[in-house]
Amino acid sequence: MKLLRYGPEGAEKPGVLDGAGRIRDLSGVIADVGGAAIVDFGWASGLDLESLPVVEGTPRLGACVAGTGKFVCIGLNYADHAAESGLEVPPEPVIFMKATSAIVGPNDNVIIPRGSVATDWEVELGVVIGKTAKYVSEAEALDHVAGYCVVNDVSERDFQARRSGQWTKGKSCDSFGPIGPWLVTRDEVGNPQNLKMWLTVNGETKQNGTSETMVYGVAYLVSYLSQFMTLHPGDVISTGTPPGVGMGFKPPQYLKAGDVIELGIEGLGTQKQKVVADD
Amino acid sequence: MKLLRYGPEGAEKPGVLDGAGRIRDLSGVIADVGGAAIVDFGWASGLDLESLPVVEGTPRLGACVAGTGKFVCIGLNYADHAAESGLEVPPEPVIFMKATSAIVGPNDNVIIPRGSVATDWEVELGVVIGKTAKYVSEAEALDHVAGYCVVNDVSERDFQARRSGQWTKGKSCDSFGPIGPWLVTRDEVGNPQNLKMWLTVNGETKQNGTSETMVYGVAYLVSYLSQFMTLHPGDVISTGTPPGVGMGFKPPQYLKAGDVIELGIEGLGTQKQKVVADD
Repeated sequence: MKLLRYGPEGAEKPGVLDGAGRIRDLSGVIADVGGAAIVDFGWASGLDLESLPVVEGTPRLGACVAGTGKFVCIGLNYADHAAESGLEVPPEPVIFMKATSAIVGPNDNVIIPRGSVATDWEVELGVVIGKTAKYVSEAEALDHVAGYCVVNDVSERDFQARRSGQWTKGKSCDSFGPIGPWLVTRDEVGNPQNLKMWLTVNGETKQNGTSETMVYGVAYLVSYLSQFMTLHPGDVISTGTPPGVGMGFKPPQYLKAGDVIELGIEGLGTQKQKVVADD
Repeated sequence: MKLLRYGPEGAEKPGVLDGAGRIRDLSGVIADVGGAAIVDFGWASGLDLESLPVVEGTPRLGACVAGTGKFVCIGLNYADHAAESGLEVPPEPVIFMKATSAIVGPNDNVIIPRGSVATDWEVELGVVIGKTAKYVSEAEALDHVAGYCVVNDVSERDFQARRSGQWTKGKSCDSFGPIGPWLVTRDEVGNPQNLKMWLTVNGETKQNGTSETMVYGVAYLVSYLSQFMTLHPGDVISTGTPPGVGMGFKPPQYLKAGDVIELGIEGLGTQKQKVVADD
């Protein structure tokens, strides 16, 4: 299933994409895409999508999962991206947090914060936790995953690296976490380590990679993180970005107001954001 | 007012401390200590505490605020603590995040995670956001603060410093964020930069400082953070710790199962945690 949330910010309703690509209203079936609905998909068993109301028009899409308590990111998880950042692949995954207040819909504007000089893009495979995970093994880790989504891990490199330590400062600005369009359930994705991913700015390809070249794969990451903290339903893990971020170009290329970012992952849909200044 | 939340984990009710130190039930007045109730304290105007039901016995206390979306911490914010950590005071505040899943009540057990070799303590002044804050000036920053509380920023130093970059890994373990006992409203605290704070382990004093020696004060921090991200009602800022953490002793002293931590801040109450292993 391709689950989604549609409607105005803060008032999104649950929906699902049908075989013809239309949005069907799920609000008669589940309260939201989050919480109990992604712990146990029993409600979906035998569900006839064609019987659900069609949502007319092209409503705004919200983040594809509600109630995210933790937005955990993995740093330098593609060897080529580590190289373009001038950093080595770490001996263990690097963990950092994005503020959950950074989460927006997949096609909402990306806002350049005041004082920014280096706002950058990062297409990433997002993992949405379904069942609570604590001290889980790599073998059982994927049982705790509800599904996958596209994440743009928008990053302000000056805030991140040159404004006194710890990356969270450059990762947590409002609008820096577009998530969606869809939460694609795990059964539909199959192997998460074989997905093509790409990102363009103003139509020009910047990132063009595959999750095949991740250093630490999804199962390993879920297991690893669960050794440090309990992962709860709705938590999102963004698994790192392949090469081609703005910081890696010589000279670096950063976003400016008016730019248009498009990004996608095979089977998980696409995002499109307009970049605006924060006046 | 000294607001609090009492009852079993996940089912806490709002309460308030009366003049005699008894808990009064607030659930007939507000839904919880969080959200709308801490944005606007209009509900407290003319409220007669003596008319509220007394809560008998000594119920468990939960974290003193509900619905925390961000648990933002400031690193190295006391010059003496930076020195004991062998680090310099940074030219701007260092920001990092604790997972909100680390939040527990003020007297709940502190759980040493599996694989830990260096679980440590940090008494800190917690700031609870009331009104939404974005790009606020230092002069208006405190208007966005609902009140203050005690935080124990429990930290695993090996996870934090030696297990591949970014502090969040050693800061986010379950139970690493006791908050409370009370959310003391701003009007009752007055100047937050003149509060004595202390911490003992098994009755022996380890930390004994004052918020007077903070490098970056509360108003500055709220303003500073709001330049990077919107602060929402219920967000907690933990403002750094004075000297005396376990890591700073020679040789270092770390927590072990059976230890008892007690900590407090002048006017904000005290916490008491038993340290247990995670078997």
